[in-house]
Amino acid sequence: SSKRKITVAYGDGIGPEIMKATLNILDAAGAQLEYDVIEIGEQVYLKGISSGMEPKSFASLRETKVFLKSPITTPQGGGFKSLNVTTRKSFGLFANVRPCKAYSPFIKTHFPKTDLVIIRENEEDLYAGIEHRQTQEVYQTLKLISKPGSEKIIRYAFEYAKKYGRKKVTCMTKDNIMKLADGLFHKTFDEIAKEYPDIEADHKIIDIGSALIAERPEIFDVIVTLNLYGDIISDIAAQVTGSVGLGGSANVGEEVAMFEAIHGSAPDIAGMDMANPSGLLNGAIMMLVHIGQPDIAEKVANAWMKTLEDGLHTGDIFQENISTKKVGTQEFAQA
Amino acid sequence: SSKRKITVAYGDGIGPEIMKATLNILDAAGAQLEYDVIEIGEQVYLKGISSGMEPKSFASLRETKVFLKSPITTPQGGGFKSLNVTTRKSFGLFANVRPCKAYSPFIKTHFPKTDLVIIRENEEDLYAGIEHRQTQEVYQTLKLISKPGSEKIIRYAFEYAKKYGRKKVTCMTKDNIMKLADGLFHKTFDEIAKEYPDIEADHKIIDIGSALIAERPEIFDVIVTLNLYGDIISDIAAQVTGSVGLGGSANVGEEVAMFEAIHGSAPDIAGMDMANPSGLLNGAIMMLVHIGQPDIAEKVANAWMKTLEDGLHTGDIFQENISTKKVGTQEFAQA
Ligand SMILES: CC(C)[C@H](C(=O)O)[C@@H](O)C(=O)O
Ligand SMILES: CC(C)[C@H](C(=O)O)[C@@H](O)C(=O)O
Repeated sequence: SSKRKITVAYGDGIGPEIMKATLNILDAAGAQLEYDVIEIGEQVYLKGISSGMEPKSFASLRETKVFLKSPITTPQGGGFKSLNVTTRKSFGLFANVRPCKAYSPFIKTHFPKTDLVIIRENEEDLYAGIEHRQTQEVYQTLKLISKPGSEKIIRYAFEYAKKYGRKKVTCMTKDNIMKLADGLFHKTFDEIAKEYPDIEADHKIIDIGSALIAERPEIFDVIVTLNLYGDIISDIAAQVTGSVGLGGSANVGEEVAMFEAIHGSAPDIAGMDMANPSGLLNGAIMMLVHIGQPDIAEKVANAWMKTLEDGLHTGDIFQENISTKKVGTQEFAQA
Repeated sequence: SSKRKITVAYGDGIGPEIMKATLNILDAAGAQLEYDVIEIGEQVYLKGISSGMEPKSFASLRETKVFLKSPITTPQGGGFKSLNVTTRKSFGLFANVRPCKAYSPFIKTHFPKTDLVIIRENEEDLYAGIEHRQTQEVYQTLKLISKPGSEKIIRYAFEYAKKYGRKKVTCMTKDNIMKLADGLFHKTFDEIAKEYPDIEADHKIIDIGSALIAERPEIFDVIVTLNLYGDIISDIAAQVTGSVGLGGSANVGEEVAMFEAIHGSAPDIAGMDMANPSGLLNGAIMMLVHIGQPDIAEKVANAWMKTLEDGLHTGDIFQENISTKKVGTQEFAQA
């Protein structure tokens, strides 16, 4: 068939309902997709599988190479590995791409002009998971930065900027303290920036950079940074633009890519038809572009924007003064 | 004499004028101080002293045990070590204390009720400065967390909360990823928290914690965290409360303590009588409490607040609608 097969996981908490809503929208928009559904998350962890994903699911991903994933719940107690981190490593998903846009006035924010994209290195840094107990009282974690890893993510950021007509790439490191590791990333950035003379390149020390994202996110365009810093600043950017419930995220590798919402599984409102499917939908829109169905992506994005503009809003973004109707997950998706 | 001798450095850029203003205020308020003035910063670096501070200055600090320090400028080019980091390490200044308060309406902020204190571990973590090049293409930095180091800073945070009648201490780590190192800090926090049943204790993962500081700083009271996270969140907190130009900071060890403004040396406005001396003054107020002159500290703090309220404002905080007069550094200090 001409349909593109993708791997889909409904996840935990609000996962199933937002995934259903999202797939309904994709199908209605004419996306050519076939779904290979796998199980992930709580139930899988509780079967004793520490990564939260069974071997046959990894096999599905190896075959389809595209993963649309709902949020999961990790059970209480130790011994469970982060499914995200495992997937990122197993498939070499080196780039975490998180667009962060203000949708004022539909979403309240002090920074209505924000439209930035954070491109976070997704495999190295302190996430390498190398830790040990040196003495009874001293623990060590290894931070690892490589030249090829840095080159790959930085080049990805500049190519992204070029492709989407963005004007500036900002690098963030703490190279005034970590002169070797962060210094390597910064130096590599300066080198690669020279190959893109039409794109402005600058650098901010991460403490100052984080503060600027919190207080003046509008000044940023594309940001490229190390894994841990990227983790922190994506949360800040999403929070200050009010888009925690709306943001999608792509984890991209040479072969495989995973798309998801940036929010969690919100078990407290699970199954109540209250959840906002926008985050996962925005992840799915990125996925459509990735698999070469950009027209459908645009159609879905426009329909989503129109629904916001029409004032049909789920409870999390409902505002008396501008919303026309408070709707549930399914009705929002229907609109 | 009954005067307490302290070490004072005028620093670079706006350093000399804000230090002059600050010492004038302290003297006028009746602080019993004697100054041992040392040279630090640009000129010292350029003499080839890589730490920016001469051996005889370290000797002064060893004698007086209290350092009131202006911002410095580090010359362009490599080979210069951070004076702050060197001082923190040489004297075991394990606690970096940064109160962050909103002074609305005198200082514009979206978060007028903010009144938090960040207590940052100041010696360990990635700041240990242990880095190496493992292969041509791989660099490593060691993150080091010790049990005694964690205990010391966490206990300091709870004692601080107790002393100043604060109600909650929040710990921030990334222990979902760094289960050993950050896990040790978190576990130690939970242990010590039990000794302070009257103080609420909670924990936030640093990415979420940073986002909350950016968007809802009012919910925090005392925060205790690792060195690098503390570096990042102090800048965010200062930025979103508009207090980058007003905040003071204490670096406290068992014996020696250093007090300063959180802002830099602002060479562009140096010598123009435009700088706001409030940051250094707030550092000096913390110093007065530290050396046992709390009455003078209160007197100075009240006088400072009254000057803000009277609407005599330096250019950086001047607002047409509420300021009565734009004043220079000296006139502000005089008031
Ligand atoms: C859940 C956690 C492992 C993950 C991370 O730290 O990367 C999350 O915070 C994220 O940003 O995707
Ligand atoms: C200048 C730099 C070394 C320092 C740090 O990283 O600690 C600064 O950012 C601070 O917060 O005092």
